[in-house]
Amino acid sequence: MKKHILVIAGDGIGQEVTAVGKQVLERIAGKFGHEFTYDEALIGHAAIEATGNPLPEATITKSKASDAILFGAVGHPKYDNDPSAKLRPEQGLLGIRKALGLYANLRPIKLFDELLGASSIKPEFLQGADILFFRELTGDVYFGEKGRNEDRSTAYDTMIYSRYEVERIAVKAFEAAMTRRKKLCSVDKANVLESSRLWREVVQKVAKRYPEVDVEHQFIDAAAMLLIKDPRRFDVVLTGNLFGDILTDEASQIAGSMGMLASASVGDTIGLYEPIHGSAHDIAGKGVANPLASVLSVALMLDISFGLKSEAETVLTAVDTVLKAGYRTRDIADGNTSSEKILGTEAMGARLIA
Amino acid sequence: MKKHILVIAGDGIGQEVTAVGKQVLERIAGKFGHEFTYDEALIGHAAIEATGNPLPEATITKSKASDAILFGAVGHPKYDNDPSAKLRPEQGLLGIRKALGLYANLRPIKLFDELLGASSIKPEFLQGADILFFRELTGDVYFGEKGRNEDRSTAYDTMIYSRYEVERIAVKAFEAAMTRRKKLCSVDKANVLESSRLWREVVQKVAKRYPEVDVEHQFIDAAAMLLIKDPRRFDVVLTGNLFGDILTDEASQIAGSMGMLASASVGDTIGLYEPIHGSAHDIAGKGVANPLASVLSVALMLDISFGLKSEAETVLTAVDTVLKAGYRTRDIADGNTSSEKILGTEAMGARLIA
Ligand SMILES: CC(C)[C@H](C(=O)O)[C@@H](O)C(=O)O
Ligand SMILES: CC(C)[C@H](C(=O)O)[C@@H](O)C(=O)O
Repeated sequence: MKKHILVIAGDGIGQEVTAVGKQVLERIAGKFGHEFTYDEALIGHAAIEATGNPLPEATITKSKASDAILFGAVGHPKYDNDPSAKLRPEQGLLGIRKALGLYANLRPIKLFDELLGASSIKPEFLQGADILFFRELTGDVYFGEKGRNEDRSTAYDTMIYSRYEVERIAVKAFEAAMTRRKKLCSVDKANVLESSRLWREVVQKVAKRYPEVDVEHQFIDAAAMLLIKDPRRFDVVLTGNLFGDILTDEASQIAGSMGMLASASVGDTIGLYEPIHGSAHDIAGKGVANPLASVLSVALMLDISFGLKSEAETVLTAVDTVLKAGYRTRDIADGNTSSEKILGTEAMGARLIA
Repeated sequence: MKKHILVIAGDGIGQEVTAVGKQVLERIAGKFGHEFTYDEALIGHAAIEATGNPLPEATITKSKASDAILFGAVGHPKYDNDPSAKLRPEQGLLGIRKALGLYANLRPIKLFDELLGASSIKPEFLQGADILFFRELTGDVYFGEKGRNEDRSTAYDTMIYSRYEVERIAVKAFEAAMTRRKKLCSVDKANVLESSRLWREVVQKVAKRYPEVDVEHQFIDAAAMLLIKDPRRFDVVLTGNLFGDILTDEASQIAGSMGMLASASVGDTIGLYEPIHGSAHDIAGKGVANPLASVLSVALMLDISFGLKSEAETVLTAVDTVLKAGYRTRDIADGNTSSEKILGTEAMGARLIA
């Protein structure tokens, strides 16, 4: 199979972790006789520095010319402490999601057995947890009108959803539920928000087409609590952009670490694959970042964009084998030094390839 | 001391738990020689059924005539499954917060040592955790303009904050931090939202007046993760209405159960004291609800509204003693049947009084 992959490494540890992701792609290509070609493009802080634009036109053009995108991370602390900055790295990420119509963000949360000890949650609550989040990615308060009043003393953002936007992601989530344990939990705040009431109306309607799926609706506050109290009650979780952002980061504790979580952003055409962790400037360039989320993103790419199931399985098995052999990056170590071997980013990459 | 207390029991288990809260108030009055008088008022589903209005005028009048309010809960599943309902129980709660100017919601999260085992989080991550949330309560997407477009195919809510609103709650949170461990974490989503950027600007400005307080800013997604990963890193947490709703429910897992968490809603005059749990219709009327959050709300009332510190301490000690003696309601039992004695709502109340 011939595929053209665009690597958008972005900021901070994005560089280091996508480098490992790419090595894994190369190894898979060699092993299975595929031909993967690559290109690179800028985004985020790196793009602002180089071009004055967090999402250069060339990045969009190259994205559209690719079969899939391997994405790193965006962000830089300098903007976070400056609420008045006009240009922000995150505009690159939000812009590319919108430009490519990537409305569905899939975030599988599954614990590797070897990491049971790495979480702050008790193992008996985690064992067997297996959640697939569907986070809507191109609507909500992220993309509604925002601004200030004239004297800048009031600021607003608009949380907004259309039936069409809710329906298309709901259908994807129900379809996925049908291939899994046939349970779906839709999360909103319908007791307060009008956009959530529309969300719930549409999900109830779509649910009628999937009578086999057992549907529940939870308010976001209750869902944030239940996710920690009883993670195993969830199968597919369907939610909006903002609530999805919050719940999936929280859910990283179920998988032991943010460093283990991959995501696929898909729409009608190309898919973008990225770790859910951020640019982590505090550890960037030190060679200690966990590359496994990027590697697991590669597995999602092979599976979802290219339909290469056994190639994806091979990557998952490699990750499992490395963990079973006791190799860990710092963030997923549980301090049991007798059995654990702590590796840096590159060494972990080399182990995976081997 | 003479005080007039309005009991607004509301819906579901609100009735049962405020009954215990009131008994505790009576016991304190007897023991310390105070004179507490009481009145009752309707809200929520109960008020809709009786008067057709989730917040009858009489409830506001009685509230304004009281020295403090003991609140139960609002909500009813029948509205949750009907996104098009015009009248909703929650309108009563939101309406009274607004009508009385209760802009600051204080939610202390502190684990009773005896409940270390009741949480899904490992005890070594919980021991010593002590967080005080300041949730803004009369602004944000709860109260901004909301609606539908003409053909009802799009729905929106406006997330909105003014400098004035942010400043007054920030000042309260910094003042509290000064009496505690002098750490404050402000939570927003300033990398995406304009209202969060205003929030961060104002908090940064107020922070200058409190140079001794060690301030950090976290994005809501990271905060939702860190709260579980490392609850002890937090002292005072300051956040908006929506993010506060989510984080405090999530944080209930740090305290072992929602049934243990009380909150104080204060503004410039009267205070309203309520459990953070909801109306829980699934267990309402069964006599199994945990009344301790209502009892701890009473302790907050005695302390904050009446300045009765030793009376508040007495209530806390009673809760501690009952837990130490092994008494539990179902929700906080950890299954260790040899040492635990499971009680219903009333029996737990009777134990506390004793
Ligand atoms: C960087 C930020 C804009 C982004 C988001 O909020 O969507 C990130 O947190 C994510 O989850 O991908
Ligand atoms: C009942 C609901 C409107 C309310 C809220 O969201 O504020 C509740 O969840 C709370 O936290 O007090």
